[in-house]
Amino acid sequence: MSRNLLLISTSSTHGTGYLEHCEAEIKELLQGKSSVLFIPYARPSGISHKDYTTKARETFERMGFTLTGVHEATDPVKAVEQAEAVFIGGGNTFLLLRQLYANKLVAPLQERVKKGMPYIGTSAGTNVAGKTIGTTNDMPIVFPKTFDALQLVPFNFNPHYQDPEPDSKHMGETRETRINEFHVHNTQPVVGLREGSMLHVTGDKIELKGPLTARIFLQGQKPQEFKPGEDITFLLEAV
Amino acid sequence: MSRNLLLISTSSTHGTGYLEHCEAEIKELLQGKSSVLFIPYARPSGISHKDYTTKARETFERMGFTLTGVHEATDPVKAVEQAEAVFIGGGNTFLLLRQLYANKLVAPLQERVKKGMPYIGTSAGTNVAGKTIGTTNDMPIVFPKTFDALQLVPFNFNPHYQDPEPDSKHMGETRETRINEFHVHNTQPVVGLREGSMLHVTGDKIELKGPLTARIFLQGQKPQEFKPGEDITFLLEAV
Repeated sequence: MSRNLLLISTSSTHGTGYLEHCEAEIKELLQGKSSVLFIPYARPSGISHKDYTTKARETFERMGFTLTGVHEATDPVKAVEQAEAVFIGGGNTFLLLRQLYANKLVAPLQERVKKGMPYIGTSAGTNVAGKTIGTTNDMPIVFPKTFDALQLVPFNFNPHYQDPEPDSKHMGETRETRINEFHVHNTQPVVGLREGSMLHVTGDKIELKGPLTARIFLQGQKPQEFKPGEDITFLLEAV
Repeated sequence: MSRNLLLISTSSTHGTGYLEHCEAEIKELLQGKSSVLFIPYARPSGISHKDYTTKARETFERMGFTLTGVHEATDPVKAVEQAEAVFIGGGNTFLLLRQLYANKLVAPLQERVKKGMPYIGTSAGTNVAGKTIGTTNDMPIVFPKTFDALQLVPFNFNPHYQDPEPDSKHMGETRETRINEFHVHNTQPVVGLREGSMLHVTGDKIELKGPLTARIFLQGQKPQEFKPGEDITFLLEAV
């Protein structure tokens, strides 16, 4: 498989602008391309497709790429089939997945990614690249017909991964507890990506980028921390 | 409708034991009853039905009630039909709702509650008493066939409600942002119940109990804080 994916935890880290912390990696991924198709379906804070696309366009134009929103296309499937590269932005993962199915974009995206079209995801856009959306942090504000996602990789993500706060008086579950509950019912690995982290997947290679370690959860095992540069190829062999 | 519901945000507040902070309200609700049917389907931290029931049993026995787990019954529907009172404990809301449907308990619970059987819910058990589970904080670790819940009241809950932390460097959405996103797609009110808070619904009366205010979100309006004792009857008139 000649996939080429950049799967980012968050679009902005504390104190940095939109996509600023991952700009170098995005430019590297898009080398030789001039245009990007943006999928704004996740609508963070309920922002319109148009406004969300304007925000993304400003950033990509500054990086030297043209950008169009998939909602501007009369035929969204054709837009995916002809795209040089796709960027799926963050927001609500349930809404995003529902709209991907409603617009029949799941199979075309899978097809193009297999053939090497660069794919960039942030947050919800990273969740839907995984096996299922079963480890999203988002609220289930709409009902998708399935939790099965694009399955561009055979594992799940937990973006914005947070460590337990030792002094917290909050009685809700920690992120780790939630992922352990997931593994009572599901077998695939889960990658906890802290803010500032991203995975770069090229073919059958996978690399953690950014300044932090990632926390990887395998069913029935103690979670493990992996540093950028360490071998995490086993994630791509998950079934 | 002669409903009699105690809908609690959390089973334990910081520094108190299991159900300790709401023990007086539970005893009041169960006046004249001697037994409780426990529904352990939400399985917090993946705990077994048996172990979860043991934990609940110890607490209810100390309060003077016998308690059986619905999973112990050969016919769970009959167990609900014959129960004096039902308690649904917290854990994962998606798993809980899926199991309520799988065991065909949704209609029997609705029927019994309408006729006045006391219902106690904590956290996930409170979520499923609402119109949908669309405002749960839980991870979607299993796929339920619908997000429609028991609809014992015509609005939604957000248990463990958290105010934004002004000093947070975390870039994930605040609870308020998530509920506002919910209201882009859904019309029903959402009650943000802070830890220590609970709603007592008797017939067409509704009362906030506990030491804190509740944050109520109506579609298209600024959220409002309500104190215990203030009139929130409008919630029961939501359609």
